Amino acid sequence: MNYRVILYTLGKVLDFEAVCMILPLLCGLIYKEDATKYFLLCIAICLVVAQLLRIFKPKNKTIYAKEGFVIVALSWIVISLFGSLPFLLSGEIPNFFDALFETVSGFTTTGASILDGSKIDALSKSMLFWRSFTHWVGGMGVLVLLVAVLPLSGGNNLYLMKAESPGPEVGKLVPKVRTTATWLYGMYLFLTVLEMILLKIAGMSIFESITLSFGTAGTGGFAVLGSGFATYSYAQQMIIGIFMMLFGIDFSFYFLLLSRRFRDAFEKDEVKAYFIIILVASAVIFYNCMKNNIDTNLGILAKDSFFQVSSIITTTGFSTADFNTWPQLSKGILVLLMFFGACAGSTGGGMKISRIMILTKSIFKEIKLAAHPNRTYKIKMNKKTVPHEVVRGVNTYTAAYFAIMAVAFLLISCNGYDFETTFTSVVSTMNNIGPGLGMVGPNGNFGEFKWYSKVVFSILMVAGRLEIFPMLVLMSKHTWKK
Amino acid sequence: MNYRVILYTLGKVLDFEAVCMILPLLCGLIYKEDATKYFLLCIAICLVVAQLLRIFKPKNKTIYAKEGFVIVALSWIVISLFGSLPFLLSGEIPNFFDALFETVSGFTTTGASILDGSKIDALSKSMLFWRSFTHWVGGMGVLVLLVAVLPLSGGNNLYLMKAESPGPEVGKLVPKVRTTATWLYGMYLFLTVLEMILLKIAGMSIFESITLSFGTAGTGGFAVLGSGFATYSYAQQMIIGIFMMLFGIDFSFYFLLLSRRFRDAFEKDEVKAYFIIILVASAVIFYNCMKNNIDTNLGILAKDSFFQVSSIITTTGFSTADFNTWPQLSKGILVLLMFFGACAGSTGGGMKISRIMILTKSIFKEIKLAAHPNRTYKIKMNKKTVPHEVVRGVNTYTAAYFAIMAVAFLLISCNGYDFETTFTSVVSTMNNIGPGLGMVGPNGNFGEFKWYSKVVFSILMVAGRLEIFPMLVLMSKHTWKK
Repeated sequence: MNYRVILYTLGKVLDFEAVCMILPLLCGLIYKEDATKYFLLCIAICLVVAQLLRIFKPKNKTIYAKEGFVIVALSWIVISLFGSLPFLLSGEIPNFFDALFETVSGFTTTGASILDGSKIDALSKSMLFWRSFTHWVGGMGVLVLLVAVLPLSGGNNLYLMKAESPGPEVGKLVPKVRTTATWLYGMYLFLTVLEMILLKIAGMSIFESITLSFGTAGTGGFAVLGSGFATYSYAQQMIIGIFMMLFGIDFSFYFLLLSRRFRDAFEKDEVKAYFIIILVASAVIFYNCMKNNIDTNLGILAKDSFFQVSSIITTTGFSTADFNTWPQLSKGILVLLMFFGACAGSTGGGMKISRIMILTKSIFKEIKLAAHPNRTYKIKMNKKTVPHEVVRGVNTYTAAYFAIMAVAFLLISCNGYDFETTFTSVVSTMNNIGPGLGMVGPNGNFGEFKWYSKVVFSILMVAGRLEIFPMLVLMSKHTWKK
Repeated sequence: MNYRVILYTLGKVLDFEAVCMILPLLCGLIYKEDATKYFLLCIAICLVVAQLLRIFKPKNKTIYAKEGFVIVALSWIVISLFGSLPFLLSGEIPNFFDALFETVSGFTTTGASILDGSKIDALSKSMLFWRSFTHWVGGMGVLVLLVAVLPLSGGNNLYLMKAESPGPEVGKLVPKVRTTATWLYGMYLFLTVLEMILLKIAGMSIFESITLSFGTAGTGGFAVLGSGFATYSYAQQMIIGIFMMLFGIDFSFYFLLLSRRFRDAFEKDEVKAYFIIILVASAVIFYNCMKNNIDTNLGILAKDSFFQVSSIITTTGFSTADFNTWPQLSKGILVLLMFFGACAGSTGGGMKISRIMILTKSIFKEIKLAAHPNRTYKIKMNKKTVPHEVVRGVNTYTAAYFAIMAVAFLLISCNGYDFETTFTSVVSTMNNIGPGLGMVGPNGNFGEFKWYSKVVFSILMVAGRLEIFPMLVLMSKHTWKK
């Protein structure tokens, strides 16, 4: 294990976090808030620690698979710990476990909060800005951004990107890793700014346009008002609903579109399935809620059905309606979508549609094999055969995914809350969604859970965001053996 | 597809069902019940239909994999349909969907009932006997018994046994399939009779000793009293608790013991894990319930904890206490055990401990591979390498298992019941357990669900008992294409 390159890269990550904190600092200056000085202090702390981590310069800067996993896992722990300092030092979230939960929830784009409505309204603007900005940074990936902007010379940064990016198969759009990362962040920034402008045009305040766009882009889900989305107009809600859906699409789809490779773009099975699922789920929920008289205004009901499906499948977690009060079938569909998640290569969490498709296709392959044992069948996606290693990776991911949720379910059961709350709080954090059902429904929060539960949730959120393996590799004794 | 051999074997299955109905007929004669005549009628119907099915004698009696799957799936549908006739014709369960549900629940050893306590007490003795006897027949397998007692000459009956027997890897204990099947049923009968004798000695009536032993042996779970287990003594409950555990052990373990191959027997990783899980789960539930003052009598609490763990992990579903009222952690452990199930090669349902172990080991293998990509690691069970096909089979099974439960969860959601009831009713039927939580808890039943839900549950129970693939092969268009 090349310890020096790990510490060196962690130093870079902290440098980067210090730079990120300049934005909430500026926000504090604009609103002339007391919190401003704490951001200055935190920037100083990050820079000093970063300097210490880089005392021993690595002789060999090559990052192999093992180091890639360890760096990514540790980076996410480090940015979460240091990212919680502004909340802690300013006393706006005085409890360590609460501040950690909130920051992890931010960076992992979960959007679950330990704050109730009145506590959200009590936060300073700069803290609210920081909270939402963590979504944006975590959405496309901390190390992907690092790869894009910093010359991590000599190293094969593909391993870093592979370990951080979601999906069963992570490839490069263009031959150079750095160009790929730059392109991804460019597109990400473009869509975010476009949403900000549209929300501003639709009459939203600049502060809310910016922060909610961060939350949408990263598929995060932190609200900036205690009342949630209740005060936003139909148009504003629809803009956010549509942009959530756009950020849930595989970014290579946009790349193909912009490269005028339309045929390749529209051959993406995952993107097609994604739209079909959104359409069918929205329609069924709309019909089910209409039959159960949830809202007599069908326009509002249609908007809420689409918004909620878009919000849950992309694992954003914004809510324009309290779906806790919806009929069981609609709630059931939303719970299933929590597992699905968005497309691989998007900013969304969950299992990812492509994994679900590969699993489904492997079932059908086995059925065909049972009928005709001597033929050979291949699993295909986008008209190409899925390599054996990818199928194996999906299978192991699925097993690990359910195993971790099972253990977490037992640990969270110790709080003694009802089955619905216990089950959906685990599913919601593991899939980086935010709200669940019951006590953690759209109008609830995670504040009441015991401190150890907040640690469990934090681990689940990071495991979910990094798709499990970096965390497991970090904790395995085999990684650290000579 | 060799249609003639399929129809021919289904005819044999119906002959066999007619023979099975002689026992409840005798029971009816002893108790001088009115129901007796309906069993005579049903036997006649079975024999006539069986005769019709065998009009066209098969020229080629060889059963290949495809025919094996189809025969097994169809056999289970046929025995369930004809097995529900006594309930329907006698009018003791007048509704078709209720009678079907109850019969499927019997043969698949689920033990979920649409009858409440007072309706159970209203059933005639011979119907209660038939209901419990279906557990015994379904436990070790209908076709395994057929293979043991009938000379299905010419065919390679291994495919039949493989399609019906649970577990990731089904092998023969001895070179001949028929001898293996005979040995399995011999051991099964011996243990059942032993339990009957012990229960009789412990003061139970002959009728209850016999019917409850059927329910324990098949890991079924139908009670024969409306009051469930409340009136049974501590000793009687303990005998049943221990025998449930014994029937959840891989029967090849007993074979190795009797063959004096002790070393091989005690090297079975699955059996070791099974006992460890029972021990740990019972201890944690005991401690958790004690802390929550569920019962001040620690002896009774210890018995209930062990009994419930043994009942749920073996997927029997008997209950000596209403675990619906237990604290969330204890309920959470029971819900997890519902997924685990017993050992492969036992009469229990669920995913099976060996599958869970193979999945866990494949996760660890992948973590080691991430750290050292150039080494090779093998998944081992019982000190032997698990073949690649078995690992692939376990992965596909797991994917299909969760996929089917997800679809069923949505369909059952249409009933509009709470999350706990909806979720655990699906988990409980798919894993052939019986009770769940909420409305389908130990003191509840499945009677209130809408008719289509009872069909969904019936499909889940058969899919769970046959471990999914025979049902999928039956329904696949590839099976029926020329």
